[in-house]
Amino acid sequence: MDSKILTELRAAVGDGRLSTAAEDLATYAYDGTWAEARPDVVVHPETTAQVAAVLRVADAYRVPVVPRGSGTGLAGGSLPVTGSICLNLARMNRIVDISVADTLAVAQPGVITYDLQKAVEKLGLFYPPDPASVYQCTLGGNVATNAGGPRCLKYGVTGDYVLGLEVVLAGGHVLRLGGRTIKDVAGYDLKRLFIGSEGTLGVVTEITVRLIPKPAAQLTALAAFPKLADACQAVGAILQAGVTPLVTELMDQGTTRAVEGFKHLGLPTDVEALLLVAVDGDAELVKAEIATAAEILKRSGAREVRQAGSAAESEALWEARRNVSPAIARLARNKLGEDVTVPRSKIPEMVARLGDIARTNDLRIVVYGHIGDGNLHPTILCDRRDAAIMKRVEKAAGEVLAAAVALGGTLTGEHGIGIFKRAYMEMGVDRNALAWMAGIKALFDPNGICNPGKKLP
Amino acid sequence: MDSKILTELRAAVGDGRLSTAAEDLATYAYDGTWAEARPDVVVHPETTAQVAAVLRVADAYRVPVVPRGSGTGLAGGSLPVTGSICLNLARMNRIVDISVADTLAVAQPGVITYDLQKAVEKLGLFYPPDPASVYQCTLGGNVATNAGGPRCLKYGVTGDYVLGLEVVLAGGHVLRLGGRTIKDVAGYDLKRLFIGSEGTLGVVTEITVRLIPKPAAQLTALAAFPKLADACQAVGAILQAGVTPLVTELMDQGTTRAVEGFKHLGLPTDVEALLLVAVDGDAELVKAEIATAAEILKRSGAREVRQAGSAAESEALWEARRNVSPAIARLARNKLGEDVTVPRSKIPEMVARLGDIARTNDLRIVVYGHIGDGNLHPTILCDRRDAAIMKRVEKAAGEVLAAAVALGGTLTGEHGIGIFKRAYMEMGVDRNALAWMAGIKALFDPNGICNPGKKLP
Repeated sequence: MDSKILTELRAAVGDGRLSTAAEDLATYAYDGTWAEARPDVVVHPETTAQVAAVLRVADAYRVPVVPRGSGTGLAGGSLPVTGSICLNLARMNRIVDISVADTLAVAQPGVITYDLQKAVEKLGLFYPPDPASVYQCTLGGNVATNAGGPRCLKYGVTGDYVLGLEVVLAGGHVLRLGGRTIKDVAGYDLKRLFIGSEGTLGVVTEITVRLIPKPAAQLTALAAFPKLADACQAVGAILQAGVTPLVTELMDQGTTRAVEGFKHLGLPTDVEALLLVAVDGDAELVKAEIATAAEILKRSGAREVRQAGSAAESEALWEARRNVSPAIARLARNKLGEDVTVPRSKIPEMVARLGDIARTNDLRIVVYGHIGDGNLHPTILCDRRDAAIMKRVEKAAGEVLAAAVALGGTLTGEHGIGIFKRAYMEMGVDRNALAWMAGIKALFDPNGICNPGKKLP
Repeated sequence: MDSKILTELRAAVGDGRLSTAAEDLATYAYDGTWAEARPDVVVHPETTAQVAAVLRVADAYRVPVVPRGSGTGLAGGSLPVTGSICLNLARMNRIVDISVADTLAVAQPGVITYDLQKAVEKLGLFYPPDPASVYQCTLGGNVATNAGGPRCLKYGVTGDYVLGLEVVLAGGHVLRLGGRTIKDVAGYDLKRLFIGSEGTLGVVTEITVRLIPKPAAQLTALAAFPKLADACQAVGAILQAGVTPLVTELMDQGTTRAVEGFKHLGLPTDVEALLLVAVDGDAELVKAEIATAAEILKRSGAREVRQAGSAAESEALWEARRNVSPAIARLARNKLGEDVTVPRSKIPEMVARLGDIARTNDLRIVVYGHIGDGNLHPTILCDRRDAAIMKRVEKAAGEVLAAAVALGGTLTGEHGIGIFKRAYMEMGVDRNALAWMAGIKALFDPNGICNPGKKLP
């Protein structure tokens, strides 16, 4: 990068907030995927004004800017591009305000999601979004991907909690969108454009989220289903009984065996599926609801239902789900974690198609996911050193996406498009809509400096 | 309107779906406000293709198109403009699909909101948005204004239920946005741009909404507060006790007296405020919750709490709230119904400022609203034949908006900007954001034919 640009960037963020040291560039060359790309420079702004100054310089010199939180993304959205500025927002990690009276919180983008959850829970409040990476990921990253997680059937996704955003556009323009009210229909809802835009329209520098009262209790049941389709059926039946579960986590046989092989929890490994169901809310109600759920699970074909009578017993059942990711990681040198969503009723058909895709491509695919909201994570096991396998993985990944779209689903439920799914956008998104999305990109970022090469085809 | 254009419009919609008869133009010259403006022609399309054909003709000849549902809007958003086509969507009133398995419904924009509610409730499902005009208003109008209502504290607004939209742009381009899944982060969330855009970006021709299980029970309590500020305090205390009420409806003394004078329900008219609190959900839980709420209401300074033990008794308490609008209408020849939202904690201050505004402008303002979500409807009583009063009304209305904005609130919570609040947009919305909103408008509607003169300043 031109030294003139570096000088201006250094002036923009101030001393100690810029680095071109090789070890720093290496540190910021990764995200949660297997891809890698080094930036030319890393900046660590601490204020909105510094972010704006960086974006002014970047726009003037047409230098790409890639915003980054904790780098836990699973689609390559925060991966640097060649010749870029890595805009590390981790130092903007202040919880600015928690208002009990207005049941909301204001936070900078670098706040760790779990830290926000704990801070508001101390005051009897609750921030429901709970992505799997909650201990590492940042609120800014959650907004950039419109992060989901297992609780979305009941509580919705990150965007459903965002009341207001401060964003900085290319050129350094600062926009205040929304605010501290639940209802606001003055003007177009621009904040929703930024939610899930993966940093391609601008940089989020402050986030106002609404909170809800902390549910008093949570209870869990774990059911073993000889037939996976019955587990899916059971979730629908639970909803029809008037119970909206907090989570409905499915693990197929491959996933269960991986977990059992890793942790020896005594899980039944001879069934097609395990289904973890949790309910939360009033202490008396959750007892009644988990009993209703357990009854329906049995009636729907579960061979065995383990029902937690206490929070501690619930925790024990959660052990299985929590170990899915590390357990799967042990199965093969590499894995490609997919993230498709289909209408809930299509889950059994989608799982069947995944089986076909694995067979025809001679690959192993294990499946788990949040089936109440139709979100599956088929994980293709592989070895990146084996070019022949990787060719089949690529073909299978395309088939997985095509199957989801054919069933009325979408390319990504919560991970984002990043760099990994750009090629499939025309398959999964209306072509006219794509044309206007390109128009939106050009409107907010005319010189294309905001996270170029991501999200859009 | 040029006869060539009329001929093309007739071809676009087909026989029997276009009128220039004076009585039809007069019929469509009104909405829910006191304003009036006749269109040049009214078209009644029955399909998306017909809407697209109309928008192609309109764009080619630069003729304004004003979409319209039931015309219940309170900001002038569906009011025709001079030389315009009134695009009446009332005939597109088919519920296309209700899926119990996927807990969603697909409907055309002309479906009456209440009809959708009833249709899904028959299947054990629930569509929570419940604007006051629910018996007349359309789902398309609800999307256009992102309609709210009393249930938003617990259940959110219309936009929180929209999974997918089909929209037609100027020029007749059809976009399919979102779909049938709860989670979807492929591409920018364009559908949220259209939600609340008041027809200024395009025309919504199909709507997919998510549904939830129908709550088993609902119970209500009515509290009389000598001090209005105590009623506001009580709502916060109820939330902090872990109870999220379905509704928290405030009526100030002027409103209560109007209702009592109209319906003689035996309401206490010597207190500053009545507060109606309802809870819904599990039958046992709502009994416990309404008891908790009643206890908190008393402890917070309520002189009297009437607690409904049954649905029928709840209905009786609702009588008061339901008669607010007709009762206020009897107080004066005309009224200007405002719709401001402030952070919940600022409601007492906002009500105090409304009292000041009434006094200094020598006007009568009655106040009611959904205080749990900070949404107040101060209603200025007036007589449109009296120019001197109307001048004071205009000044007072501006002061009401300025007060809301000064308290961290917004110009409109649920009615929209329409024509009535355009002049205030620069006061209530970030100026940079306004500039980009204008860019969005130009992107989707380059010739400015979609409901011109509405929403944006």
